Formats: sequence, C-alpha cells, structure tokens
Amino acid sequence: MTDSWATSGVDLHLAPAGSGGLRRGLTDALRDAVRTGRLAPGTRLPSSRSLAADLGIARNTVADAYGDLVAEGWLTARQGSGTRVADRTVAPPPAAAPRRHAPDRPAYDLKPGTPDLGAFPRTDWLKAARRALTAAPSHALGYGDPRGRPELRTALADYLSRARGVRADPESILVCAGFAQGLRILGAVLRARGTRRIAVESYGLESHRRVLTDAGLATHPLPYDELATDTRALSELAGAGAVLLTPAHQFPMGTPLHPDRRAAVVDWARRTGGLVLEDDYDGEFRYDRQPVGALQGLDPDRVVYLGTASKSLAPGLRLAWMVLPPSLVEECAAVKGSYDTCGVLDQLTLAEFLTSGAYDRHVRSARLRYRRRRDSLVAALDARPPEVSAIEITGIAAGLHAVLRLPPGSERSVVQAAAWQGLALHGLSSYRHERAVAEPLDALVIGYGGPPDHAWAGALEALCRVLP
Amino acid sequence: MTDSWATSGVDLHLAPAGSGGLRRGLTDALRDAVRTGRLAPGTRLPSSRSLAADLGIARNTVADAYGDLVAEGWLTARQGSGTRVADRTVAPPPAAAPRRHAPDRPAYDLKPGTPDLGAFPRTDWLKAARRALTAAPSHALGYGDPRGRPELRTALADYLSRARGVRADPESILVCAGFAQGLRILGAVLRARGTRRIAVESYGLESHRRVLTDAGLATHPLPYDELATDTRALSELAGAGAVLLTPAHQFPMGTPLHPDRRAAVVDWARRTGGLVLEDDYDGEFRYDRQPVGALQGLDPDRVVYLGTASKSLAPGLRLAWMVLPPSLVEECAAVKGSYDTCGVLDQLTLAEFLTSGAYDRHVRSARLRYRRRRDSLVAALDARPPEVSAIEITGIAAGLHAVLRLPPGSERSVVQAAAWQGLALHGLSSYRHERAVAEPLDALVIGYGGPPDHAWAGALEALCRVLP
Repeated sequence: MTDSWATSGVDLHLAPAGSGGLRRGLTDALRDAVRTGRLAPGTRLPSSRSLAADLGIARNTVADAYGDLVAEGWLTARQGSGTRVADRTVAPPPAAAPRRHAPDRPAYDLKPGTPDLGAFPRTDWLKAARRALTAAPSHALGYGDPRGRPELRTALADYLSRARGVRADPESILVCAGFAQGLRILGAVLRARGTRRIAVESYGLESHRRVLTDAGLATHPLPYDELATDTRALSELAGAGAVLLTPAHQFPMGTPLHPDRRAAVVDWARRTGGLVLEDDYDGEFRYDRQPVGALQGLDPDRVVYLGTASKSLAPGLRLAWMVLPPSLVEECAAVKGSYDTCGVLDQLTLAEFLTSGAYDRHVRSARLRYRRRRDSLVAALDARPPEVSAIEITGIAAGLHAVLRLPPGSERSVVQAAAWQGLALHGLSSYRHERAVAEPLDALVIGYGGPPDHAWAGALEALCRVLP
Repeated sequence: MTDSWATSGVDLHLAPAGSGGLRRGLTDALRDAVRTGRLAPGTRLPSSRSLAADLGIARNTVADAYGDLVAEGWLTARQGSGTRVADRTVAPPPAAAPRRHAPDRPAYDLKPGTPDLGAFPRTDWLKAARRALTAAPSHALGYGDPRGRPELRTALADYLSRARGVRADPESILVCAGFAQGLRILGAVLRARGTRRIAVESYGLESHRRVLTDAGLATHPLPYDELATDTRALSELAGAGAVLLTPAHQFPMGTPLHPDRRAAVVDWARRTGGLVLEDDYDGEFRYDRQPVGALQGLDPDRVVYLGTASKSLAPGLRLAWMVLPPSLVEECAAVKGSYDTCGVLDQLTLAEFLTSGAYDRHVRSARLRYRRRRDSLVAALDARPPEVSAIEITGIAAGLHAVLRLPPGSERSVVQAAAWQGLALHGLSSYRHERAVAEPLDALVIGYGGPPDHAWAGALEALCRVLP
C-alpha cells in the first residue's frame, strides 16, 4: 500500500509495506518529514495513542517508531513535554557533489599501458573462480597474511621461475594491488632505511616517479642511449640507494637493457649494497625471440622483481607481485599489512588460473594477437606514399606499444592534431624526466594493445592521417 | 625426454621438451649450470657448432640459446674470445626467507571481529559474479575511477539509504579496501587540512588509533559512562578537528550512543566545523528492535559514514565504503587514487549482490544465526551453578560480540587460563585507550560470530570452564 495520510497537519508518505512492515514505514515517513522540514524543530507530535487511532494501526507500532527516532536523534522525549521534533536546525540537503564528468571518450585510443580488455578471458576466469572458491577453506576468507594468499604465492613462484627465470621462494613474494602500490611500499621501506635518492631512467612513467617523490625519495635520471639506460653512471652517482629499471623492455623506448648494462647494475648493487627495482611490466610479450629472462635471476639478494596482471590480464584486477630479497620481506609486509590488502577471491582465482595452465594459454593467444597488431602497424607505416616523410618505428620486438620517431619539433602539433580528430595518443616528451640529459626526441608512443578488434583498422587509419 | 648429457665436462640437465622446446630446454639447462657454479665464471663454452654436434641438435638452436643467455647477462660474447661464462661471482642462493610460522591455531576462537566465515554465501556469490562479469562492459576492467565502480556506488547509495538511513549520493561514495584504508585516507586528508588532534572513544581498536597516529594525528580519548561515549566533552577539547565514533553499537562495549550524545556531537561539529567519523561496522546486526539509524542522516555535511563488508560478508573481500560530505570527495579520491584501488570484479559482484536482494537475504539469515548464538551464550552463563560468582553480560542487543564483566583484578588470569586451554579470547583492557580517564574494568570481549557451527558448543563449554 502506498498512501498519504494527513495527520495533525502533516502528510506522512508511507511507503509500501515491504520487508520492514508498518513500523519501518512509519519510522521512515516521520524521519523524512523531519529531515525535509515538513515537521519543524520543536513541533510536538501527537501522542502515540492518537496517531495510532488516526492511522488505524496499533499503538505499539507508533510508540516503537517514536522510540527509534528518539534513539537516532530526530525526536526528543522528555517527561512532561511529550515527543517533539529535536530542536536543531534541519541540515540543508548536501550541496551537489562535484561531478567528475568522464572526459568525452576519444573515438580511438592509442595510449599505451592498457591491454585489449575485450580479450579478457571471462569464461575461463569464472571457471577458475568457481573452482577456487569451492576449494578454499573457510579461514581463507578471513583477515590474512599481508603477503597475500599462500596458494597464489606458490603458483607465482612456480610460474615466474618457469617463464621469467626468477628465483622465487613463496615466502619472499608479496602480492599487492598493482605495481604502484608495490613501489609505494618499497619507497617507504627505503626511506625508513635512510635512502634519500633513487636513480631512475631518463624515460618512464611520471606517475611512478611521483610515487617515489611522495615517499620522500629524490629521483635522479640515468643517461639513455642506443644500448638503453646507461647503468654505468650509477657509479658516479653518490648516495643513490636504489635504482628503478625496466630491463626486459625499456618503458617506453622498447629496447632491452644491453647485457653489459645488466652486468653493470648488478655489480653496482653488490659493491654498494644498493637495491635494484626491476619493473617487468610486460616481460611475457616478446615476439621475435625468447623473452629476455629477468635480471633478478642474476642476484636475488639485490634485485626486487615486480610483475603485474595489469598487462597480461586486466588492470581492473588490481593484482601485482613483488619477489623480494629475504632481508626485505618483514619490513615490506609490515608497511603493507597495516592498511592495504587485496581481495582473496581474485588471489585464489589467479592461483587456480596459473596452476591450471589457463594463464599460459591466455598469454600465448594474447601474444599472437598483439604480434598481429604490431605487424599491421608496421605494414601501415610502410604503405604510406613515398612522398611523405618516412617514420622510423622502434621498440617493436616486444610489448604492447611502439615508438614512432617524428621530424624534430613536430611532436606537439601531431598530438594536438590527433586530439582534434578524436584520436588519443601520447607524445614521448610526457615520459621524459625533467632533468634527463639527452636532447629531447620528437616521437609518439603508440599503444596497440588497447583498441578492441573492431576499432583497430579505424585507429590505424586515423593515426596515418595525422602523421606528417 | 629427460636426459643428462656430459658436454665439455659439464652435465647439462635438460628438462623434458615441453611447450618451450629444445632451445628453451638448453637455455634453462645452461643458465642453471652457471647459476649453481657448475660452469665457473670465465669458462669458455664450446662453439655452437661443436656443442650442437655433441648434443645432436641444430646449430641454430645452440646459437639462439647462447644469444638468450648473453642478453640476460649470464654469458658474454666478445669478438675473438668466443662465448664465456660472465666473469662475476655467482650469487649465493638466497638465505632462507624468514618463515612466519602461523601460531598454532587455537582449538576455539572467541576473539571478536570476524563473522562466521563458514556461512559465506559461496554459491550466491558465484552466481552474482557470473552475472556481473557477463554484463560488465570491457572498459570496466581497465584503470578506473579511484572512488570505485559506479555500479557499486549506486547500489550502496540505495542500500544504505534504505537500511541505515544514510543520505548518500553515489558521487560522494568512496569504495575502499577495508575500514582501515578509509581511515588512513581520512587521516591523510585531515592532516593536510591542518588537523593535529582527533577525539576517539575510551574503548576501541588499538589498530585504528595507530592508523590515526601514523597519519600524524594525536588521539584524545573521550570519557565513557553508562550512556556510552560522552560527546559533550568535545566542547572542552581545544583543537580537535574530528572525532571517531561507533554510534550504533559502541565497540567493544556494545551500547548505542545515547540520543543526547548524538545530538551533542552533531552540534559540536556544526559549531566548530569539526568532522564526525561514524564507524558503522556492524549496524545491520541488531536483534531486539529496529537498527539504530546512522548518525550521518542528521548531518551529511559534517559526518563521514564508514561501512564494511568485513562483518556482513567476509574480511577477505577487502571491501568497505565511505559516504563523504561533498566537500571532501575530491581530496579523498586524490589520496586514494594515487596508489591503492580495489579489484573491480568483487566490486561488480557486490553491486549485483546488493541489487538482486541476495545481500538482504544473507544479512537476515546471518542475523538469525548470530541471535541464536547470543541467546545460547546468555543461557550458558545463566546455567552456571549458583555457587560460582554471577557474570554480568552486557552489549548483547546487537552485533557479533558481548562483554562479560569479571571480578576486579581477574581479567588477566582468566585470559591466560583460556590461552592454556586453547581458547583464544580478548580482555577488555586491550581495547582501552592508554589515557582513558575511567577506572579500568575487568571484562572479556567475547566474539560469538567466528566459530563454525560444529565448534560452537565446545567453545561455550571451554569459556564456562575458565570463568571464575
């Protein structure tokens, strides 16, 4: 029943008697009348007996509703003065919340960093979720180890050793809600150990540098050349307690760290006691040869390996992992444990996904798909008419993005022209450390993983249109 | 094929040729030989031609494997000196990681704070997960709004308004990975706004006070008496910019905040511009009358409402929510967004769980079960022989725990005796603020939600045995 009863001059809009019944309906209606000001502060309410008679309901129901609202502070009940509306100004309705309008979604999105979300293996994931949740002991659903579920840490240790040459003990793995959370934890631990300065690459994600800065660490860019990041420069860098690198596939330039540079960074770490943070964000996606094994295998006591499901599955999972030197485990778990943990259901599901082989199958099919994308990008650039300037494309041996070199001075205008045409893309300059020593290069960082299949051809055409 | 070939004096343990094939097997075997020191630093490897002949495999396979290991830094290839094992000391195997032995699980666990994990609605949850993931657009799996998925914020706004009298706009809700993460975010925002001091209750979780202290806020305990926390004392507390309260069900004492005290805290907030943090951790579980509505309804501009799925479903979900005054939304989202977000799959599933009515059904059946637990706890205490001292039990109108008053001076010995008998429980003193003014009370905080059904009778018996 929906009804509106005029009672002592006040309309009570009683909602249909649902699960809550009459008492609940009356409580809600009275609360609403007070809240909106229809019952003014100080107003004396009819006695429960007379309101009950008016409404044709039991007196107890009214008395209970009054009691509820007194307990909540909307009404007051004083000996001798009856039940009144609490004598406080009615709170104004909250001001409209700041609406964060999602920016108009671009027609085509070639920004790097996101895999093809349309290819998320929904059916296989749900199958794994069912198996994992069915098998999980009840206590797995409680507050847990800050390092993450043991099932997942065991599955990761096995997978990372097999696929990436990582030397991992499940006891030294820390599951976290994305790479940035891992970096935040490491930043806090480094800072607590007295580190004030960390070396980074000349090109990288500004958001990652900000995580480090927020942790109280000053970032210092290492030089970059055709052999990738020059880690030999670490030796001349006084007081850097750590270095953040993307050895398998420099982000965003796309080259692997040269073997001499790999050796140099491990030597530096051993000599100075420094720590190497290895960001292996897309190590699984290498097309023309075997993946380059993780740097961590060279010295698990000095290298922290960081991996993520954000590129291989989906960023929305919020699952990443660190393989820590044993000496860092307790400190990192303490920083993480105090506040932030990851949902266990997704952890258990990913463990099942890894051990059942579904992860390998998914990565293999994704690798094929991304390789085809890359090949068609290269072909599209090759097919441009001979009269336009040639565009050099680099960083294509692996990953989900490529770097397109542009004529000097043209990057900004190309990015702008693309935006006007509804094509979202990033210029290389947005990845450059503000104190990088090399001359700025004009280039585009083209993510070919993101567009859904049906939009890929159109995205490619739009890209070719805006190139000089 | 698993085989061991002696080559140039080195045993290469080739794993069965699996997905990776011969090249992969050879790469792994050589890497392992270098890693373990069987191939010493500086050792010159046979030419690819001669190793290929030794092994009876194609020369290219060997050359590729050498190339992989050079790229990874295990081998070096110099013009004129052939391929050698990199001239660095082999990393010692990592020291055994510190094993965190799970403490022996007690036979019975009556610590408060955990619901009956055995009653987690696995089947209904999986059904909701399937529906949610099937319906979700692909872009939902990407990097998202730091406030959380709009589907969940909309479902929460509806549910909280209906069930808890909260005035919530989905735009002002922030989904977070547990209550503590929400509190950390609020602490950071308050600190950034210049707050240095926050009022808390005399009894509460030490871990929550530590979150505030870590954020740079000094905690100041408000007095506690039979009407629950004395919020009138806020007026005499100079410089407190906020107060953290459990109004519906004081934790752990179990009483609701008296209506006058509810009014006093809202008046204080309006007068001083202070902020009220309302911890509504188990507002759904009230047994003998309607739930006490949320304080937030009295003034959504001055009260932050904090709720969680940890008591109603399971802590392992790591899902909680804040309903923020509109003026705080941007700042809180900025603090959260930079690092820590929650998995979207569980968010979408909870949204489906709420809107389909499965959540209400689950809460109703859990309420019945907990109420039965509570009744049997009361009955067991009543049934104790008349010659032992009577145990007063309080805080039983709601929630998943009760407070058992003990004779003065006996708390510590009772807790100790319980531990010896494999019964885990908490004394009230562990919840007391170190600067609380009231005399310490001897009592036990008994969580009756946690034990699985089959262990409940035994837990109750064990409890009665250790009571004085």
